[in-house]
Amino acid sequence: MILTVTLNSALDVTYRVPALRPHATHRVTAVTERPGGKGLNVARVLAALGHEVTVTGFAGGATGRVVRDRLPDVTDALVQVSGTTRRTIAVVDERTGDTTRLNEPGPVITPAEWSAFQEAYTDLVAGAQAVALCGSLPPGVPVGAYAGLVRTARAAGVPVLLDTRGEPLRRAVAARPDLIKPSADELAELTGSHEPLRATLDARRRGARAVVASLGPEGLVAATPEGRWRATPPARLRGNPAGAGDSASAGLLSGLVDRLPWPQRLARAVALSAATVLSPAAGEFDRSVYEELVGRVAVTGEASAA
Amino acid sequence: MILTVTLNSALDVTYRVPALRPHATHRVTAVTERPGGKGLNVARVLAALGHEVTVTGFAGGATGRVVRDRLPDVTDALVQVSGTTRRTIAVVDERTGDTTRLNEPGPVITPAEWSAFQEAYTDLVAGAQAVALCGSLPPGVPVGAYAGLVRTARAAGVPVLLDTRGEPLRRAVAARPDLIKPSADELAELTGSHEPLRATLDARRRGARAVVASLGPEGLVAATPEGRWRATPPARLRGNPAGAGDSASAGLLSGLVDRLPWPQRLARAVALSAATVLSPAAGEFDRSVYEELVGRVAVTGEASAA
Repeated sequence: MILTVTLNSALDVTYRVPALRPHATHRVTAVTERPGGKGLNVARVLAALGHEVTVTGFAGGATGRVVRDRLPDVTDALVQVSGTTRRTIAVVDERTGDTTRLNEPGPVITPAEWSAFQEAYTDLVAGAQAVALCGSLPPGVPVGAYAGLVRTARAAGVPVLLDTRGEPLRRAVAARPDLIKPSADELAELTGSHEPLRATLDARRRGARAVVASLGPEGLVAATPEGRWRATPPARLRGNPAGAGDSASAGLLSGLVDRLPWPQRLARAVALSAATVLSPAAGEFDRSVYEELVGRVAVTGEASAA
Repeated sequence: MILTVTLNSALDVTYRVPALRPHATHRVTAVTERPGGKGLNVARVLAALGHEVTVTGFAGGATGRVVRDRLPDVTDALVQVSGTTRRTIAVVDERTGDTTRLNEPGPVITPAEWSAFQEAYTDLVAGAQAVALCGSLPPGVPVGAYAGLVRTARAAGVPVLLDTRGEPLRRAVAARPDLIKPSADELAELTGSHEPLRATLDARRRGARAVVASLGPEGLVAATPEGRWRATPPARLRGNPAGAGDSASAGLLSGLVDRLPWPQRLARAVALSAATVLSPAAGEFDRSVYEELVGRVAVTGEASAA
């Protein structure tokens, strides 16, 4: 079982309108709703790949009920909270294709709810092959939260992927996670270096065992104890990048539990990410596109001397 | 008991954002949610005035559950449907005070759901002192719906207030409702006349027993079998007109079941409407403001010769 953690889960609502004009009244032509937050996105892709997945984090209120009702084929171990899970509204202008976003604030997590989560997490980690800690922290959760969750996983001998940014990332890196998956911007924020190769090495010195940095359409760059690689998609892709990073995380975790060597893990991550960009629905991917792409990802680099 | 009907109920969601900019991402600073649709607004004001109220219409899905959970102190006789109750999102720009609206489409009502509603309505009308039919029709409900509901109420000897527009209004007027409460625009749409006094008389000739037309900040004009009146608020009011028309409907119904003479009904309607405009929260009213205003509404006109 792979465990994904989404402390700041959401219901992602997409509205299509013919043209968005401030101060006007709009008839929404189509509404879609989907559980969101990075950990739930990773879980959806892992489940589609056939992995057994358990999701945890927080959910509450009427929106929390909708999130739980619409989870993909995963085990629901979300912790109930007294506040209401946030909605994010993406308003797509059908004329221009542009998106305007309205993000509700998340519920404030109480100290008792945070304690209940930590207890549930410790129990879940004991049965997990790998853990993914993803996304921002909701109000009320201490900034060192991910550092503690990384330590719990490491104490249980379970590999942990961390995908967050800012101070929560900085603190959790010092707790020695097995893998971090920052964007180039997040990595620069952490290390002060805008040169990805240098920055990945610096992030490893700060405590991350392996670093896979996303370079957007140019693919991934990886610095690991086993070697350094760069993985590039077969062509420049046009499409919707929403969720592409979460698909890459899912590819890395999937390759980890399948015990693939790094070059194949990276190819899986890049192909899933590309198949997500190419999908018409944000955050979805087409399995046949993925399978067609995975053999065409270029991976260059070298393994370390044993 | 007063029965209010809301065939196209909604959950009205209000977001406050510092400044709305198309294609940007916004952090919503405050979220409020309230059952909406004209009939539910009327019911809220009637309940606040101390009347016993039953609400019916349709509700469904997760949003329908939230609407039902948050009803004011009224009896819930909403009919469950398989579709999902619509949300309306009002995005208030805190810099300018302007509002941008996004209205979801309502659920499509099936023929079986429409039949179930008509049966429930017939039973409820038998126990009602008055009925209010309010708002637009959802897809699936025939355009002659209100005409049928007016006839059912008249057959039961229960007075019926109708507040809708367009073809559903035109058809229902021919079924001889006791009272219609159009805006000046809706009245012009019905009669072709932009002169409110002439238009109210014309609407009576088309079948409405009494017509109370709203002139916005200038108050109400009434044409009834008992006489003709004009009711004007004590001063030009600045504030949020959302829900002011529904508060006027509630005042007219409240005065009807309390058997007040027309001038006092109109004063109640204008004072409730004004207290709603002056309230900081859309669609709410301050009871003390209402009580202070009700004695200061100017009503001019004359009763018909007996």
